[in-house]
Amino acid sequence: MKISARNVFDGIVAAIKPGPINSEVDIDLPGGVRIVATVTHDSVAELGLAAGRPAKAIVKASSVLVLADGAGVKLSARNRLEGTVSAIVQGPVSSSVTIALPQGASVCATVTHEGLLALGLKVGDPATAVFKAPAVIVGVDA
Amino acid sequence: MKISARNVFDGIVAAIKPGPINSEVDIDLPGGVRIVATVTHDSVAELGLAAGRPAKAIVKASSVLVLADGAGVKLSARNRLEGTVSAIVQGPVSSSVTIALPQGASVCATVTHEGLLALGLKVGDPATAVFKAPAVIVGVDA
Amino acid sequence: MKISARNVFDGIVAAIKPGPINSEVDIDLPGGVRIVATVTHDSVAELGLAAGRPAKAIVKASSVLVLADGAGVKLSARNRLEGTVSAIVQGPVSSSVTIALPQGASVCATVTHEGLLALGLKVGDPATAVFKAPAVIVGVDA
Repeated sequence: MKISARNVFDGIVAAIKPGPINSEVDIDLPGGVRIVATVTHDSVAELGLAAGRPAKAIVKASSVLVLADGAGVKLSARNRLEGTVSAIVQGPVSSSVTIALPQGASVCATVTHEGLLALGLKVGDPATAVFKAPAVIVGVDA
Repeated sequence: MKISARNVFDGIVAAIKPGPINSEVDIDLPGGVRIVATVTHDSVAELGLAAGRPAKAIVKASSVLVLADGAGVKLSARNRLEGTVSAIVQGPVSSSVTIALPQGASVCATVTHEGLLALGLKVGDPATAVFKAPAVIVGVDA
Repeated sequence: MKISARNVFDGIVAAIKPGPINSEVDIDLPGGVRIVATVTHDSVAELGLAAGRPAKAIVKASSVLVLADGAGVKLSARNRLEGTVSAIVQGPVSSSVTIALPQGASVCATVTHEGLLALGLKVGDPATAVFKAPAVIVGVDA
């Protein structure tokens, strides 16, 4: 698999909550991080997803927002990965922020240049990557 | 809260429609604009969302598309914020368009450079920011 | 309609699966490609969507990821458009990849610069555009 998405996490399906159109799939990564994905009901069947089976959680960098200071707020987004900023690349409109996770993986977010300024982040600072469950694509080895 | 998302709107929860996996949350902003968010059923409970309570609607600029002329078309996207272009920043691939809303807030969209050319917009022109309900993250003060 | 979204596909509604909050809408494009969209139940009613009626599937380039080699993996994303890379534009953070479809249309994706490097794609190579059903906005002529 060669894919443009910068964030591909290997884990194990922990649970599936079926719904009529969308189902929720929980994927546990090594080190205790849980990723929540919503995928169509049909995809759960097509991929043969079931608790205990390996699965990949795939997230585009453009779907990830960055929280530099989450004090005082609770967000509906189900996925929050806490780590340390390991790289920042600035462009005229978009910038990318890479956050190294304590579990060993890292997560990449693209944000607007102004969003980056608002965060005031530099390499080494703590930060949290946040993304919604519908932003996650689930993959399995064929 | 320091967050990369360029669009954070403070409002009041107007209504919640619960579903088995996803629920719909309507948030009214000052001036009569309504934002529709779909969040997981679990998030509604975790955030203690209920009609009449304050909430933030948070939207990444990359989730927002821009409509320069909506004549002759109806879109499924639930959120449409009409205003006036207040700023345009052009990059080689991505460009950003900021639309000032008559209610006082503004909304930022990142679009492709070609998308910007297709719009033919300049500062001062009317434009509409469009985004889908699943693109909205709901936040509440902790 | 003047819209920033780079991907607007004209087709015919093939089927609608209603759900309590979200409904699934299948749109068939000329040449046998099917686009799957999830939109709110309310939008289906507001747009008067029904099998056999014309509809547009609208997708932002930032919602599209690119697969250069899909061997060995199955993805939950419902939309996969196979074609040939017709253009690549590189920026410092974001790059865009345009994929010409055999049916005559093309699809544009914005990916991170590193994502582009990981793909190793050049013009003329086969590639697949992948996007999730919630990323699709459905439009109808008013």
